[in-house]
Amino acid sequence: MTQTVRPSKTSALIRFLEKPGFGQLITGVILVNAVLLGMETSPTLMARFGEMILLLDKICLAIFVIEILLKLVAYRVRFFFNGWNLFDFVIVGIALVPAAQGLSVLRALRILRVLRVISVAPRLRRVVEGFITALPGMGSVFLLMAIIFYIGSVIATKLFASTFPEWFGTLGLSAYSLFQIMTLESWSMGIVRPVMVIYPYAWVFFVPFIMVTTFAVVNLLVGLIVNSMQDAHHEEDGERTDAYRDEVLSRLEAIEQRLSEHTGAQTKK
Amino acid sequence: MTQTVRPSKTSALIRFLEKPGFGQLITGVILVNAVLLGMETSPTLMARFGEMILLLDKICLAIFVIEILLKLVAYRVRFFFNGWNLFDFVIVGIALVPAAQGLSVLRALRILRVLRVISVAPRLRRVVEGFITALPGMGSVFLLMAIIFYIGSVIATKLFASTFPEWFGTLGLSAYSLFQIMTLESWSMGIVRPVMVIYPYAWVFFVPFIMVTTFAVVNLLVGLIVNSMQDAHHEEDGERTDAYRDEVLSRLEAIEQRLSEHTGAQTKK
Amino acid sequence: MTQTVRPSKTSALIRFLEKPGFGQLITGVILVNAVLLGMETSPTLMARFGEMILLLDKICLAIFVIEILLKLVAYRVRFFFNGWNLFDFVIVGIALVPAAQGLSVLRALRILRVLRVISVAPRLRRVVEGFITALPGMGSVFLLMAIIFYIGSVIATKLFASTFPEWFGTLGLSAYSLFQIMTLESWSMGIVRPVMVIYPYAWVFFVPFIMVTTFAVVNLLVGLIVNSMQDAHHEEDGERTDAYRDEVLSRLEAIEQRLSEHTGAQTKK
Amino acid sequence: MTQTVRPSKTSALIRFLEKPGFGQLITGVILVNAVLLGMETSPTLMARFGEMILLLDKICLAIFVIEILLKLVAYRVRFFFNGWNLFDFVIVGIALVPAAQGLSVLRALRILRVLRVISVAPRLRRVVEGFITALPGMGSVFLLMAIIFYIGSVIATKLFASTFPEWFGTLGLSAYSLFQIMTLESWSMGIVRPVMVIYPYAWVFFVPFIMVTTFAVVNLLVGLIVNSMQDAHHEEDGERTDAYRDEVLSRLEAIEQRLSEHTGAQTKK
Repeated sequence: MTQTVRPSKTSALIRFLEKPGFGQLITGVILVNAVLLGMETSPTLMARFGEMILLLDKICLAIFVIEILLKLVAYRVRFFFNGWNLFDFVIVGIALVPAAQGLSVLRALRILRVLRVISVAPRLRRVVEGFITALPGMGSVFLLMAIIFYIGSVIATKLFASTFPEWFGTLGLSAYSLFQIMTLESWSMGIVRPVMVIYPYAWVFFVPFIMVTTFAVVNLLVGLIVNSMQDAHHEEDGERTDAYRDEVLSRLEAIEQRLSEHTGAQTKK
Repeated sequence: MTQTVRPSKTSALIRFLEKPGFGQLITGVILVNAVLLGMETSPTLMARFGEMILLLDKICLAIFVIEILLKLVAYRVRFFFNGWNLFDFVIVGIALVPAAQGLSVLRALRILRVLRVISVAPRLRRVVEGFITALPGMGSVFLLMAIIFYIGSVIATKLFASTFPEWFGTLGLSAYSLFQIMTLESWSMGIVRPVMVIYPYAWVFFVPFIMVTTFAVVNLLVGLIVNSMQDAHHEEDGERTDAYRDEVLSRLEAIEQRLSEHTGAQTKK
Repeated sequence: MTQTVRPSKTSALIRFLEKPGFGQLITGVILVNAVLLGMETSPTLMARFGEMILLLDKICLAIFVIEILLKLVAYRVRFFFNGWNLFDFVIVGIALVPAAQGLSVLRALRILRVLRVISVAPRLRRVVEGFITALPGMGSVFLLMAIIFYIGSVIATKLFASTFPEWFGTLGLSAYSLFQIMTLESWSMGIVRPVMVIYPYAWVFFVPFIMVTTFAVVNLLVGLIVNSMQDAHHEEDGERTDAYRDEVLSRLEAIEQRLSEHTGAQTKK
Repeated sequence: MTQTVRPSKTSALIRFLEKPGFGQLITGVILVNAVLLGMETSPTLMARFGEMILLLDKICLAIFVIEILLKLVAYRVRFFFNGWNLFDFVIVGIALVPAAQGLSVLRALRILRVLRVISVAPRLRRVVEGFITALPGMGSVFLLMAIIFYIGSVIATKLFASTFPEWFGTLGLSAYSLFQIMTLESWSMGIVRPVMVIYPYAWVFFVPFIMVTTFAVVNLLVGLIVNSMQDAHHEEDGERTDAYRDEVLSRLEAIEQRLSEHTGAQTKK
């Protein structure tokens, strides 16, 4: 008997969870929590209201946990089919990891809960979804850049590791330095000019590296623009044009049809 | 009786205010005022002609005040319905705030009066209006960036406030430093490398931050380009295409009509 | 009699000047001259072959002068109607200004003669003409940026001239510093952070300045892209589409015409 | 007789070389080789497994050499008609140059073998081919920038060589410094401000140089975007539109045809 009762309970729960009021409540809690986490960074506020802030923070977290538990009960396995639910689950999960061992990093990550505001605001969701759908189209260029970075790091490490261990001592340090160079930050005065004091031909490596990576980044940008343009073009113009074309063709067909009937009729006559 | 007289006075005033000559006069005063405010920055010029410059500046301001008063009399409440009027009102208003208390900031803001040249030059107005109409479309991305900055600032403050108080001491300082990092200015040599001396894994926070914010900025740019393209495309091509399509469809309809009449006529025959 | 002889002489001269061989000769002289001017920068080369290099340079210049004189004789006033001729005239003219007074700047400007290679190579001419035709469309935004720079310079000078005379001492220094800030070069670590030590709220001026100018630059870019797209779209697609549309409409008209004749014929019958 | 046997052997070889399995094997060897070359940069790994790493590297190289020899046997001269084959040939060839003379540069270049992963992965190949096909369209702008750089270098060397030999001592140093200035890296605080201490009007050269080169780079970007847009537009829309237009025209022709037959028939009657 409990079997037959449960579904109705679940569907009532789903109806409750999908009420706009419930979403607004959660959005409110997220915003309050964001302010609280911001306040935690202020030593003066923490000295005075520290206990209250931490308590309120725990209450917010409790509300999130309850929300997710309710959703788990309501949607069961389907809960995990939605990317945004997984996103919420992981973000709230991070906050539950015991941070008592002085892992300040994990405690700092609690602020990621503010990202939940994205999953509850449809407009922000759409922007982020737009970003994510743009990524696969850029996959090949990203892979190419990863290859260029790997090759560049190996070359830089082999050539400069002994003389500039701080910048090119290991593959990782080289990759970081090359990323800095790609962003053009202090690439010449900070890195390449000092290197050129010892290896006068170092520019033969760095200048083409800058050109190739910049060109690849520019191509990413161009790809993004072209894709967005096409999407926008289709969405809007495409349908109207298709409808117009269909109408023209069907009308032409009707005229031909009528003409052939007509001729047939006359021939019969 | 005064009731009936007033409107005619007002409409004469409106006609006077809307004469091109009046606009040109105001533009001239704005430009003279701009030069005067520029001259005020030169100590040698102020030492010699200081009194005259300040006097002329006051005369310019008086003309602006009179102009706005006349417009207020002429348009009354409607004056405030136009955004550009409000803009002029605020800018002239700033200059009237008593700046005697040594508030050099307020005195420096008097130069904002030069911005009035935008409100009197239709071409500049159109450019600025174009900028402003582009903003709402970017609202979601701006909101997203604000969220990312808030989260980034809280994390940076929590992690680095104690060791780098100059850069990440408070939420505000962190936000400023992250803005600097987003613009890629000295992000590595100036900020991240020093931080990495103490926290070797700091790049795990900063490099993704740079990538995400740069990607968001790039998306703003792409959105702007796509919107502008569509506007330009519609304005120009759209109307001609629509006219052409309407003509084709109406002609096809006429042919069908004629054919059906024809057949009908023959059938009757 | 000389009157009637001259035109034929002139037209023979024009034919000679417009021969491809003559253009190639001049291009060759420009390239040789470019190499010579490059060699002049090397002290070792100048020490050994200095006299010969200077002599050859004078010969190149003489050839250019003769070329322009011939063109002046051939085309007379019409010579100055062509922008590229004016360009050549000014560039060769600079080289003739007596540079004996140790004006190293004027002697350095002789290298501008290499720019003549643009006026003789049609492909480069087209690129530069493309650049120049793009400029008027950006006029309003440039004017707006000039206004923003003027206002920014006045404010910066008023506020910071006394404490940072090196950067903001005069209107000119302020404009240069703001240009540097607009290019994002060392804007924070180099300028704004030191300023903020004395004026903690300086970012209220500089951060919006960066945002506004960057946004204006982005709008210039967007405008360029949209214009180029439209030109490309028209040039290529426009004509074919127009031809197609004209054909469809004329055919539809012909069908209607024939139908009305037909009906008329039948009615008459 | 060997004549007739050989072709069949060759075609069997070609079939073997074009099997997907063979391509996957080579891809695998390339990836293993990439990891090995990365491990060579680590002193600790080299101290422990150095001999084994170098041995495996030699085996990888041997496999590449055999692969290319097989392809040479199979395709003969046609091998060199394909750009990607040439690419592989050169990259493997570099590794065979005896590097025993302590030319660490050549040894570092062995990592370029990882680039072979591009020639075996069709998606990456297409991206690189896209990059390369975009280059010719930018040829004119590149040539123009080369001219601007040459002129800028000569001017900078002539003016500043004596006072700033480190930055503008020779044509090469000037070109490098101008490249740095074009990328906006430390252009003002690092180069132009120090120069302006001695030559207060140096900005007259550098600021326009920045504007012109930035504008040229922007035009490259705009050209890339416009070309990509057109390609995308054609590929997708073009064919459908052409098909539609052909159908409309052929149908209109058919209607006209029929009408004229009809009229003819009636007239005959």
